[in-house]
Amino acid sequence: MRDVAVIGVGKTAFGVFPDRDLRSLAVEAGEKALKNAHVAPGQIESFYLGNFAGPSFVGQNHLAPYVSTALGIQGVPATRIEAACASSGSAFYHAWSEVASGVNDIVMVVGVEKMTSQPTAKVSEILAEAGDCSGEMRAGNTFASLFAMIARRHMHDFGTKKEHLASVAVKNHANGALNPDAHMRKVITLEQAMKGKPIADPLNIYDCSLISDGAAAVILAPLERAREFSDKPVRILGIAQASDWVALDQKDDITTFPAVRRAGEKAYKMAGVTASDIQFAELHDCFTIAEIIAMEDLGFVPRGKGGPYVFDGHTTRAGERPVNASGGLKAKGHPVGATGVAQIFDLVQQIRCEAGDRQVPKHSVGLAENLGGSGGTCVVTILGAA
Amino acid sequence: MRDVAVIGVGKTAFGVFPDRDLRSLAVEAGEKALKNAHVAPGQIESFYLGNFAGPSFVGQNHLAPYVSTALGIQGVPATRIEAACASSGSAFYHAWSEVASGVNDIVMVVGVEKMTSQPTAKVSEILAEAGDCSGEMRAGNTFASLFAMIARRHMHDFGTKKEHLASVAVKNHANGALNPDAHMRKVITLEQAMKGKPIADPLNIYDCSLISDGAAAVILAPLERAREFSDKPVRILGIAQASDWVALDQKDDITTFPAVRRAGEKAYKMAGVTASDIQFAELHDCFTIAEIIAMEDLGFVPRGKGGPYVFDGHTTRAGERPVNASGGLKAKGHPVGATGVAQIFDLVQQIRCEAGDRQVPKHSVGLAENLGGSGGTCVVTILGAA
Repeated sequence: MRDVAVIGVGKTAFGVFPDRDLRSLAVEAGEKALKNAHVAPGQIESFYLGNFAGPSFVGQNHLAPYVSTALGIQGVPATRIEAACASSGSAFYHAWSEVASGVNDIVMVVGVEKMTSQPTAKVSEILAEAGDCSGEMRAGNTFASLFAMIARRHMHDFGTKKEHLASVAVKNHANGALNPDAHMRKVITLEQAMKGKPIADPLNIYDCSLISDGAAAVILAPLERAREFSDKPVRILGIAQASDWVALDQKDDITTFPAVRRAGEKAYKMAGVTASDIQFAELHDCFTIAEIIAMEDLGFVPRGKGGPYVFDGHTTRAGERPVNASGGLKAKGHPVGATGVAQIFDLVQQIRCEAGDRQVPKHSVGLAENLGGSGGTCVVTILGAA
Repeated sequence: MRDVAVIGVGKTAFGVFPDRDLRSLAVEAGEKALKNAHVAPGQIESFYLGNFAGPSFVGQNHLAPYVSTALGIQGVPATRIEAACASSGSAFYHAWSEVASGVNDIVMVVGVEKMTSQPTAKVSEILAEAGDCSGEMRAGNTFASLFAMIARRHMHDFGTKKEHLASVAVKNHANGALNPDAHMRKVITLEQAMKGKPIADPLNIYDCSLISDGAAAVILAPLERAREFSDKPVRILGIAQASDWVALDQKDDITTFPAVRRAGEKAYKMAGVTASDIQFAELHDCFTIAEIIAMEDLGFVPRGKGGPYVFDGHTTRAGERPVNASGGLKAKGHPVGATGVAQIFDLVQQIRCEAGDRQVPKHSVGLAENLGGSGGTCVVTILGAA
């Protein structure tokens, strides 16, 4: 297998854009990535689109050629991958695989979702289709209620407190406030975060990520060719995709995600690093409890210790291991199909020292964790300076 | 790149199954393929699911781990691919790529669609999402009306007649009547086929494929390991995926599909064969005109000559080049996401000499063409005896 590098990235702002359709967002991100990589559309040899629910949100399916042709990419394989909230993380994994194995050299991945044209109740219903609709969703669950059960059990088993959850929100909002492309640039206090409007107890509105429109794009090439295109290539040190039950009720223990553990272990092994080598991370904080559990499953902290670790400030931008310096799904926004590639975008910005006010001090080795549903899919990627 | 073989196949009957859900169909096909390949679920190293519109048809998304875990496949990458009617053809292409390039050895692909729980008008609406919803579909087109325009133009440019279209239906119904798993086992006469209920002139009900439930599965391995699992492995001689505009109105000429031509050329080149070496084929007859154009784009006949070629009997089971001996989408049925892998199933049955009453005389080299939408995606696969 060949070493693979990111040679270009692009991203739209995340937010509520009533005047923008799915394709225009995807094309904007894609064109920025092409420009960033100094690559022409005709040089792209294979195209991947990560999208969760375009048909349900905007009535458009068959999305890969729908986007690729609009970018001027013609004839080559154009493939849409759907893996719930890990759709574009999975698309990135398959693009990496194609370059690493020598099938193609220059491969593009775009992640996109246009969510805000639907009313919130309908959005919740569409998101719920990423759970097991034959059981848990038929019983009335939404993702907020599933993650509320996870949070409650984590509190019961490990003594995690609402203050711990709230501290994730406070940190990520503080980071997002510095991100010009974030959906919500609003600093909040711990008191505010504790007193948010209840959603599914113990989760309140500040424990939940945002419903956003947006797109992100990345272009990959073999590391040995990377400097033909970019003077700041970023290397993929490790990457893995793993799967597990979609339904929460099939799991032995709902306070840990086997797919995250497995993807993390495989990515660490491939990169030849351990959790302690990870200097900063973008973790899938669809709900505050998810960031806490991700840190535990990835070995950043022992099981049950994630809450206090955040609360004590170790994951702020100035802390020992910054997490979600971008603002995370919580404040940067969570256009579902864009999130996986947007995490890669954020790691690349940090590694290239282009993160502006959000720049973290140690930025040579970063990790992205992209979770699908309540753990049915996970993709873990470790990037480093080339 | 390594040579790759099909080591096992499985398929459900196609039809209307009100008592079966999407997952049970996918699991039935998958378990049959595992048994056929003598492979245990724990040996599968990567899993692909081809599905077009599970969320819209049955309210379930995040479909790959939803199916793979039910098959006892845990932990490994489980990836859903959507490419309209070419969803499982594309999934098969990516599975081939993974084995050919050495990323994994034993890879499974399941294609599935559960369509009949929705009323026909709703099915048409969901299918229309594979077209360009911002233009052609907003103008009121369905796929039947798009292919009607294609047929009308083909008639105008080349003198193709309604009798030619009808002869595709007559042939495929005759074949389907011999297929115990076909959705519609009904022999029809040319007169009947000419006088079907109008759908979108010049297409009538007999020019249109069926709305079906069903699933198909296939397991791949490196050719060098194939006989560990199967005494009848089938070799992938050539394969390619290509893309083009999703919207018909973007194309210079609607009587030919550039994605089919390109995928065909690449697959022929990889296999080291020409069109004249193809002994039999499964072509994507979503509408009768599509089978005629596919024969032209793949070089079976010169442009404009597809209609007379069928009408003169050259593609019957006893003809010089049998096409859709399975009954095709027309009579076997067209559960959209299952179709690409079902075509592979049919080629494998013929090459293994297991096609019963439908067995064609020359069956060493067969071709499958799986079309997405009105030509936005195409996957062409050439299989041969190992």
